[in-house]
Amino acid sequence: MKTAAIIGGGVIGGGWAARFLLNGWDVSVFDPDPEAKRKIAEVLAQARWALPMLYDRALPAEGRLIFAATLEEAVTGVDYIQESVPERIDLKHQVYAQIAAANSDAPLGSSTSGFKPSELRDGMPTGGRIFVAHPFNPVYLLPLIEVVPGDGANEDVVARARNILSSVGLYPLEIKKEIDAHIADRFLEAVWREALWLVKDGIATTEEIDNAIRYGFGLRWAQMGLFETYRIAGGEGGMAHFIAQFGPCLEWPWTKLMDVPELTDELIQKIGDQSDAQSGHLSIRELERLRDTNLIAMMRALKARGNAAGALIADHEETLPRPDTRAVPMITIRRVIPIDWTDYNGHMNESRYGQVYSDAADETMVAFGADADYVAAGLSYFTVENTIKYLVEAHAGDACHVTTRILLAEGKKLKLFHEMRRDADGEVYSTCTQFLLHVSLVTRKTCPPRSDVAEKLANLAATHAEGAS
Amino acid sequence: MKTAAIIGGGVIGGGWAARFLLNGWDVSVFDPDPEAKRKIAEVLAQARWALPMLYDRALPAEGRLIFAATLEEAVTGVDYIQESVPERIDLKHQVYAQIAAANSDAPLGSSTSGFKPSELRDGMPTGGRIFVAHPFNPVYLLPLIEVVPGDGANEDVVARARNILSSVGLYPLEIKKEIDAHIADRFLEAVWREALWLVKDGIATTEEIDNAIRYGFGLRWAQMGLFETYRIAGGEGGMAHFIAQFGPCLEWPWTKLMDVPELTDELIQKIGDQSDAQSGHLSIRELERLRDTNLIAMMRALKARGNAAGALIADHEETLPRPDTRAVPMITIRRVIPIDWTDYNGHMNESRYGQVYSDAADETMVAFGADADYVAAGLSYFTVENTIKYLVEAHAGDACHVTTRILLAEGKKLKLFHEMRRDADGEVYSTCTQFLLHVSLVTRKTCPPRSDVAEKLANLAATHAEGAS
Repeated sequence: MKTAAIIGGGVIGGGWAARFLLNGWDVSVFDPDPEAKRKIAEVLAQARWALPMLYDRALPAEGRLIFAATLEEAVTGVDYIQESVPERIDLKHQVYAQIAAANSDAPLGSSTSGFKPSELRDGMPTGGRIFVAHPFNPVYLLPLIEVVPGDGANEDVVARARNILSSVGLYPLEIKKEIDAHIADRFLEAVWREALWLVKDGIATTEEIDNAIRYGFGLRWAQMGLFETYRIAGGEGGMAHFIAQFGPCLEWPWTKLMDVPELTDELIQKIGDQSDAQSGHLSIRELERLRDTNLIAMMRALKARGNAAGALIADHEETLPRPDTRAVPMITIRRVIPIDWTDYNGHMNESRYGQVYSDAADETMVAFGADADYVAAGLSYFTVENTIKYLVEAHAGDACHVTTRILLAEGKKLKLFHEMRRDADGEVYSTCTQFLLHVSLVTRKTCPPRSDVAEKLANLAATHAEGAS
Repeated sequence: MKTAAIIGGGVIGGGWAARFLLNGWDVSVFDPDPEAKRKIAEVLAQARWALPMLYDRALPAEGRLIFAATLEEAVTGVDYIQESVPERIDLKHQVYAQIAAANSDAPLGSSTSGFKPSELRDGMPTGGRIFVAHPFNPVYLLPLIEVVPGDGANEDVVARARNILSSVGLYPLEIKKEIDAHIADRFLEAVWREALWLVKDGIATTEEIDNAIRYGFGLRWAQMGLFETYRIAGGEGGMAHFIAQFGPCLEWPWTKLMDVPELTDELIQKIGDQSDAQSGHLSIRELERLRDTNLIAMMRALKARGNAAGALIADHEETLPRPDTRAVPMITIRRVIPIDWTDYNGHMNESRYGQVYSDAADETMVAFGADADYVAAGLSYFTVENTIKYLVEAHAGDACHVTTRILLAEGKKLKLFHEMRRDADGEVYSTCTQFLLHVSLVTRKTCPPRSDVAEKLANLAATHAEGAS
């Protein structure tokens, strides 16, 4: 069993502790703050909820969490040490000196955002094993760790540290040269500064600024970052073409107080070469397809939760025409098969047929008055059995529709028969016989539907029975 | 039928055209570039692929695309005009004057990122209906439009424009005061400038910078933006506490060349009040849960595609222990039910059981040698029928496992029986009888399994038959 020492609790230290514990490491924490136990317990509770959900496989059994009485006790015999104490160099040096007396070998990462490794290491015993390992909140979910070894680092120790960080699901991004604020915080700070001006000058509120980020470039950056996105904007002309278009903006008035790098031919060449090395294996069309696939997948994931940009898409969807549920059989679904429904076989995954039929049942419910208000009032139908036949492969981009017939509606019981067809030629992809029971969402037990809904359902079922003759 | 005029093709104009067309509007395009038709056709092809996939309902029938011979013809009688010509004010003024002669009423949005509405409007006839409507690439997918009316705008026309933009699925963010570069491009430019320094100084490559963004804060910004994220970082102390911690960084050496707003009590109060108005209806714990839910949903969506941060998570997952398929019945799944699998009934959606059983079948295949290499070699199993019984509700966070028994393995035929159980008490959530056929992924037709796989499968099936006795 491996052990990590977490020096300094709080949100960052707690996040580190959670990362290691939930990946099966033992963790010994030292923090003199009397509130440390409570703070770490709070972070850990949230991390225990969140991190296991990322994966489609169980995490290993959780490690043991120990609160050490002293710094020395915390670090003795451990395999990795992460320091997250307040950003004061004298304090950090004091901590490192004490650590060196008890453990001279384990990699010692610092969560610092402000200090360079040369500053951390200055005058320290066993300084070569000290490096920057700067995480991002929430540490238990976001993979990025900026690893800055700097000159004088013990390369073997840093290599060992990188392996350890990777083994707990992190992404150690090694930064070649040390620099104030590393990389990411330089961006964060540039944006923060600009945002403060906008609020101060009354141009936009905090909410408007957040919306300007999360409904636009935030979604791009979540999956491609800056340069690969701009490579697409440059089109077949590539980065050089993009810079020719966008570069001159750097000298526009709103940058007058900034120190701006000159766009020399050399710098443009350097960016172009690096971008080729990064993305040159894909054509612009392929990059565009990749970007759009990611945007669709992320926005649909947010839509399913009703959050952020997903809430906007859901609102817009409500204005789109509903299928014609007055027909017999009813048309309950008209849609296109989205890319996030396909699997490694290159076709729609079997589980997504269940999604289609679940949605068809929802639309059927709406047709007889068991709508969103009805559900909000605590009544609904739960599916108890589905038999799905898979006849013809369905692919991303296929336009399709589902017809639904009520086979049985009797008290709590409801039986539906769905057929999913390709719009182009009417070919049947799949059929489903679905058996549902009416339930109270309060007791979670079966109960008869409300009389008005029962009556509407009976009428609809009668129409379907006639239509079938 | 409503018609939009798109003045200026290219990637931006093409994106606007696609937005309107795919939402059922007719579109008339004017662009003197002889390549305009080709360029717009390319954008439109990609948009036709992408946009319908965002929704779980079909978009309306696509509108008609007309290429107008003259600017006048393009704008005559239309309901909305969007100008996306090159960023030269003389050119824009010339275009606006010609438009005014043929259409004096329709809202006239400009895609400009550099000009303020007062500059666009200066000396123009019917200038009050001109405003900034700045989109983000890809215009057919990203919802954000920065709408800047500025002083002297015709408010009725701008209100009409906002309704039109919303009706085609866009999010018009109205910016109170005109300012160079509006809002979002100020952030983009600040980050771009910083990125150029990092490349120039050899601190990081374009790829490292993109990774620093997309594996960390990019994911945060895609769903919450800047201030709401930082509100969480401030903890129960809120924004004021956060600024007290982070604010001093503004005066650190790496900002020495920047004009930095002074963090007066007044500014801190203003930010705190705006943040309260934006996010005060949720506690910090609720915001944290919201953030993590969104991060999990987005990262899992990327994982399913094998892209960006999702690729990192998939790699890490491969290192996690597999379930014990040597047991009888085999344990094929050990996992936690993720939040993105739950629906409006507050429990795991019926379709996700299909996902679990699909994954259990994959793991069963691996157990008898039909693994990823086998699939890559062009052979696989397709499910042809599933019968799923839903017995007990499953909830997000539940740890569960699936046992699988081979009921039949005969030539192309494979029949499995799965039981999904709660780890805590062994309660059976659901069962599935799954019938699969062996297929060639090349011909997409059934065929017998490869002999080595058939033999392993036969042995495994025999073990299961014994175990059942």
